[in-house]
Amino acid sequence: MSATPGFIRKEDAVVLMLDHQTGLFSLVRDFQPDEFRNNVLALAATAKYFGLPTILATSMDQGPNGVLLPQLREILPDAPVIKRPGEINAWDNPEFLTTLKATGKKQIIVAGIVTDVCVAMPTLSALAEGYEVFVVVDASGTFSNVARDSAHIRMANAGAQLINWFAVACELQRDWRNGLEGLAALFEKHIPDYGNLISGLKR
Amino acid sequence: MSATPGFIRKEDAVVLMLDHQTGLFSLVRDFQPDEFRNNVLALAATAKYFGLPTILATSMDQGPNGVLLPQLREILPDAPVIKRPGEINAWDNPEFLTTLKATGKKQIIVAGIVTDVCVAMPTLSALAEGYEVFVVVDASGTFSNVARDSAHIRMANAGAQLINWFAVACELQRDWRNGLEGLAALFEKHIPDYGNLISGLKR
Amino acid sequence: MSATPGFIRKEDAVVLMLDHQTGLFSLVRDFQPDEFRNNVLALAATAKYFGLPTILATSMDQGPNGVLLPQLREILPDAPVIKRPGEINAWDNPEFLTTLKATGKKQIIVAGIVTDVCVAMPTLSALAEGYEVFVVVDASGTFSNVARDSAHIRMANAGAQLINWFAVACELQRDWRNGLEGLAALFEKHIPDYGNLISGLKR
Amino acid sequence: MSATPGFIRKEDAVVLMLDHQTGLFSLVRDFQPDEFRNNVLALAATAKYFGLPTILATSMDQGPNGVLLPQLREILPDAPVIKRPGEINAWDNPEFLTTLKATGKKQIIVAGIVTDVCVAMPTLSALAEGYEVFVVVDASGTFSNVARDSAHIRMANAGAQLINWFAVACELQRDWRNGLEGLAALFEKHIPDYGNLISGLKR
Amino acid sequence: MSATPGFIRKEDAVVLMLDHQTGLFSLVRDFQPDEFRNNVLALAATAKYFGLPTILATSMDQGPNGVLLPQLREILPDAPVIKRPGEINAWDNPEFLTTLKATGKKQIIVAGIVTDVCVAMPTLSALAEGYEVFVVVDASGTFSNVARDSAHIRMANAGAQLINWFAVACELQRDWRNGLEGLAALFEKHIPDYGNLISGLKR
Amino acid sequence: MSATPGFIRKEDAVVLMLDHQTGLFSLVRDFQPDEFRNNVLALAATAKYFGLPTILATSMDQGPNGVLLPQLREILPDAPVIKRPGEINAWDNPEFLTTLKATGKKQIIVAGIVTDVCVAMPTLSALAEGYEVFVVVDASGTFSNVARDSAHIRMANAGAQLINWFAVACELQRDWRNGLEGLAALFEKHIPDYGNLISGLKR
Amino acid sequence: MSATPGFIRKEDAVVLMLDHQTGLFSLVRDFQPDEFRNNVLALAATAKYFGLPTILATSMDQGPNGVLLPQLREILPDAPVIKRPGEINAWDNPEFLTTLKATGKKQIIVAGIVTDVCVAMPTLSALAEGYEVFVVVDASGTFSNVARDSAHIRMANAGAQLINWFAVACELQRDWRNGLEGLAALFEKHIPDYGNLISGLKR
Amino acid sequence: MSATPGFIRKEDAVVLMLDHQTGLFSLVRDFQPDEFRNNVLALAATAKYFGLPTILATSMDQGPNGVLLPQLREILPDAPVIKRPGEINAWDNPEFLTTLKATGKKQIIVAGIVTDVCVAMPTLSALAEGYEVFVVVDASGTFSNVARDSAHIRMANAGAQLINWFAVACELQRDWRNGLEGLAALFEKHIPDYGNLISGLKR
Repeated sequence: MSATPGFIRKEDAVVLMLDHQTGLFSLVRDFQPDEFRNNVLALAATAKYFGLPTILATSMDQGPNGVLLPQLREILPDAPVIKRPGEINAWDNPEFLTTLKATGKKQIIVAGIVTDVCVAMPTLSALAEGYEVFVVVDASGTFSNVARDSAHIRMANAGAQLINWFAVACELQRDWRNGLEGLAALFEKHIPDYGNLISGLKR
Repeated sequence: MSATPGFIRKEDAVVLMLDHQTGLFSLVRDFQPDEFRNNVLALAATAKYFGLPTILATSMDQGPNGVLLPQLREILPDAPVIKRPGEINAWDNPEFLTTLKATGKKQIIVAGIVTDVCVAMPTLSALAEGYEVFVVVDASGTFSNVARDSAHIRMANAGAQLINWFAVACELQRDWRNGLEGLAALFEKHIPDYGNLISGLKR
Repeated sequence: MSATPGFIRKEDAVVLMLDHQTGLFSLVRDFQPDEFRNNVLALAATAKYFGLPTILATSMDQGPNGVLLPQLREILPDAPVIKRPGEINAWDNPEFLTTLKATGKKQIIVAGIVTDVCVAMPTLSALAEGYEVFVVVDASGTFSNVARDSAHIRMANAGAQLINWFAVACELQRDWRNGLEGLAALFEKHIPDYGNLISGLKR
Repeated sequence: MSATPGFIRKEDAVVLMLDHQTGLFSLVRDFQPDEFRNNVLALAATAKYFGLPTILATSMDQGPNGVLLPQLREILPDAPVIKRPGEINAWDNPEFLTTLKATGKKQIIVAGIVTDVCVAMPTLSALAEGYEVFVVVDASGTFSNVARDSAHIRMANAGAQLINWFAVACELQRDWRNGLEGLAALFEKHIPDYGNLISGLKR
Repeated sequence: MSATPGFIRKEDAVVLMLDHQTGLFSLVRDFQPDEFRNNVLALAATAKYFGLPTILATSMDQGPNGVLLPQLREILPDAPVIKRPGEINAWDNPEFLTTLKATGKKQIIVAGIVTDVCVAMPTLSALAEGYEVFVVVDASGTFSNVARDSAHIRMANAGAQLINWFAVACELQRDWRNGLEGLAALFEKHIPDYGNLISGLKR
Repeated sequence: MSATPGFIRKEDAVVLMLDHQTGLFSLVRDFQPDEFRNNVLALAATAKYFGLPTILATSMDQGPNGVLLPQLREILPDAPVIKRPGEINAWDNPEFLTTLKATGKKQIIVAGIVTDVCVAMPTLSALAEGYEVFVVVDASGTFSNVARDSAHIRMANAGAQLINWFAVACELQRDWRNGLEGLAALFEKHIPDYGNLISGLKR
Repeated sequence: MSATPGFIRKEDAVVLMLDHQTGLFSLVRDFQPDEFRNNVLALAATAKYFGLPTILATSMDQGPNGVLLPQLREILPDAPVIKRPGEINAWDNPEFLTTLKATGKKQIIVAGIVTDVCVAMPTLSALAEGYEVFVVVDASGTFSNVARDSAHIRMANAGAQLINWFAVACELQRDWRNGLEGLAALFEKHIPDYGNLISGLKR
Repeated sequence: MSATPGFIRKEDAVVLMLDHQTGLFSLVRDFQPDEFRNNVLALAATAKYFGLPTILATSMDQGPNGVLLPQLREILPDAPVIKRPGEINAWDNPEFLTTLKATGKKQIIVAGIVTDVCVAMPTLSALAEGYEVFVVVDASGTFSNVARDSAHIRMANAGAQLINWFAVACELQRDWRNGLEGLAALFEKHIPDYGNLISGLKR
């Protein structure tokens, strides 16, 4: 067995989208708002398109953190939503952990707000238990570039792989012939430049 | 009569959206793609919401410039589309000019790709004929910030007012009580931060 | 009389702080949050220190725009707060206009959120009626740099003077000997680098 | 025992704030002044809120480096302040080392000015002696981004974990129910966007 | 006659390319080297394509300023090159002025290194004598953005129009049907994104 | 044998240029277009100059991804072009793998669009099979800086060496005396500043 | 007489360097420290080289503003230094005004810290009295880019000309033959790139 | 012996300054010119102040690379200068290697132009032979940030420590009492902000 880090495998992966809540979005300053909302929804649409088990979570959604982003819920209406009453690290919430472990998956694809806490803590916890973790950097946001970069280094040095949502989709697809139209529709909707290339062809 | 530049008046204004074509979008480097597509569609949705006469135009849409952005067309399916066979300045196209003048409006709200040509040329032409011109800076794109800033100075010094799509919407609305829900829906869709504030209230 | 733009004169000036509301702050992307909140509070503290009449205003503060920034209210507990039920341009609100005109001042120092609407509209209205207008650029915020810069050009070309809060304070003070300690305290609190210089001297 | 890097544990941690002196603040160019002062004070307030032993230090505070930031001292009036007569690496100062070792803690949370010297040197010394070190990147400042990034890489490659003050607070808190109001007050004061969310709820 | 600034007219325009010398290129820091060299050559190619009279100039080309950019000379092998023995403002050189006036043109299209001197001085001199001046901002370079922006404001306030090379080409062409292939070839060579659109069509 | 990462050795290296297609270029936002096209062509010219075996590849070149950049093809007219009918990871394409393995080389120099997929996937695959991989960072492009940086960290942590095209050329050359004029010509063409230095000498 | 703004004329100009004090330098955030100190000294050296009358000034130099920059004083040991006891606008200080008027010059070249106050106030005062004012933008510094840009617009709209120190030197020199070695030495010292070009020639 | 990376030790270190040549400086785009020249000279002055053996080198200094920076030579007039006739990697030059090995030092402090070649190659060579290598990141320059960052990662992953010149000086000094005035003079000259703090004290 090679020690080289592996790719995401569709049959082994679960997606965790943590604390994408309306209040917390206002804390995110390492992305522009249009770009960030799009990235979050794109990851959700990717999870849906490939039929990956997906777990949503919120933290104290009655308070200032706000409610789960409604547009995210619309894409994934059937995903379980774990409403944490207080645990900052989702891994500390028994319901969350049970739900995750019930999937039986060993590869975790994770994104959330904020990168340095809601993503970093479960990432480190999962790595400690032997999971492979793929942190989706562009669907995770935080206060500043320095907070982001430091969290990235911390997680990567602990063994996580840093990845963007587009690469997640491509690793799951592996071959365009595994459903050309679906992938094209996903990219057309969430990558304006790709959409323009596709529209240009339809002429 | 005051010499102070006036606001946009709903009854006097026409919207020109020039050359928002799939090929030309790939030339735009003064905005990120997500942000720019959103701004363009937001201006179209504003024009539609306020029922302003709107004229779309393309330049040589059989060639590399590409076709009219389909998502823009979906918002404004009934707006006239002037397909210019070669004139770079829309003002030089008789059909365009006739269509514009038939609206009888004297305030022009204009956006397009690229700012320094497809927007600047008709802006200067319109100002020379006595129109008031409002250039929508964030729904217009070009190659670089230096090209943009120079075109802004050129147009502003010639008498144009520089404005962003949000301000266009607000000047047309004047009072939130002139249709609260419509404006809120417009902002919810096209301003993620505003959408999050509104979603938070619905809790 | 010289046509050169004049300075702010303490006896002629009124301060307008428009729509610095908790929800609207989340729309501001042309400043970092720490810097912007500090600038807003610094302008309020400047107005208080010099005893300038100051008018606060909010727009639909029961909705997503949120409530008046509490820290701002703490600095200026006695200033009138005009709660506009819908008018986007404060100038369109009779109570606001009456309150403003009752001050008898002809120099307006104005800041607000967002620059391109809540600041730009009353600025243009005031200029049209012959007021001198000083736009406090660093206590006003908006969606993007391009929106800000365009609003600045529009207002400046209409006759407004662009200024930052520090320059407002300095023009009002004119001479350090007009109350050295008060001004130093203002700067020590709101300009970290200045505060460090002052602390260094106390050693 | 897992090799995965662990979290900060309240019972095992000591905070070191090194050389946050009024003169040295003027050397910091990798943060804006408002943001940086706020971050430093936020880390101090975090240490205080969680009751962590905290050691302050200065370097030659009679000279150009200036005095300990007074606002920092106000938050932590009882923390020991080690005034180093010349040692650049605090670890070389016997009083500092004795004070640190007397706490019996094995996790060090460290910040200071400048990152590449006053933070990096004791970090490397502590790692060499088997401490776990958490470098608080946003309460540490230096001359430039390239100096910062290089120091980060150097420390991370030596085994330090890079973290921001917000994540420090969250790892110490672990669960919002461990004192909801205290944490909320901390965030309300030091994170303007969070403060606005909380203020909005009070309406 | 309208006071609105006019467009460039092919029959009335002369191009001045001032001091694009190999040494002076190393002073240019407001553009990346690839982008800037391309812009300069693109302006030369535009002048050639439209057959505009073009005057090149150098300043002390035996010294540190270096020789005329060879690639520029290759595009315009027959243009006169005025080698100024010392005059900083080309307008002060009799041979230059004579050559310019002999063209009989009243519209000057000018670019050079550095923007704030070699472009600004002849621009102000030409405006003072009643010429229309179009400053090609992206084929002119200087030490910093602040030097550039200030020179732009100075020249624009004196009456110059700021423009980029692409807009120069488009105003000269006016209609794509005035030689579609030539213009397309010009853009394909000097605008990579445009080139890619054109190549895509050839498939 | 030292564990230190080695240099590129001319006799052991093969160059892979993956998916430099006209459509995909419009997705690249981490470089300006002029700079990026130049870097890509410079890498190709380097491969050619040193006579390295080079394999080009495209992905679905009948669709929106577009055709192989014609200027790249002109430099390397004889290199094999593997047209992948669907495989996203070139390593999954048997023809590609056969062609690569037929070279017998164990050092791979790779660049492509986009960095996080078309470069990262074959890089990880090659590392897993024991190849030394050199990722040419400035001839590879993607959507954003955060996507790029994350892919770099992922690949570097897996064992790849990050390098730029200039360093590739220098490691292949080792000594200027191994063909001074050829290397100088390469740099003169693709590094404007170097070209200006060389031109200056010819005076 | 032409209305076009004129150049600086050596026989008509006086240089004002206002409040370049050691404390105030730490407030400057729109330039990097190395670059800004160099620009300030370069302007002083320019004034000295051309023998222009130069007036230095300080504001409360016993307090936090600090003393006059020693390196500046070394260049201009004989220039008068007006130590203002409190007036923020140097124009309000009788000694300053008398000294200035005694020069009999009508063109003012001014720089200082901070741009928006110590430069802007005397600039507006001088313009009101009919002086021509040249604001040296790169030898003047302030808190932020937005403060700088706004002050630039305010001053330029009032009639000031924005210029950088290099352009000041060039307008004073007019012709390289008016003392080639002196100008070259000035540039060699204060423009590293120019210095390198000159050093290269000496080989 | 601890595996933690050690500090620079004065008795064990040699300084290599590679290819700081007048031509090559014009290639450096990851620093502003003032800042970079200052950093290079500061490192030289540091080497001199601590009396470290220092080796200078040039590459083909009769050609476009230019001559050794004269100001650097002035600081270190007695250091050996190895003029490489062609070897790109200084390690490949026998005279260089002999000179280096004759020092008997095992810690190498290295800087040069360009980072990714002239610094990276000898760094990797030295690491392979068991040297400790400290790469001075701010006295080394290259074409772009992406080239720099990649070279940093490559060298750091191979075992080099990244450091800035200020940290080099501090690690060599260890304690301010080891010659307070000399270090202060070094910082006063090369760190403007530090200089201002020191000047302020002299008042």
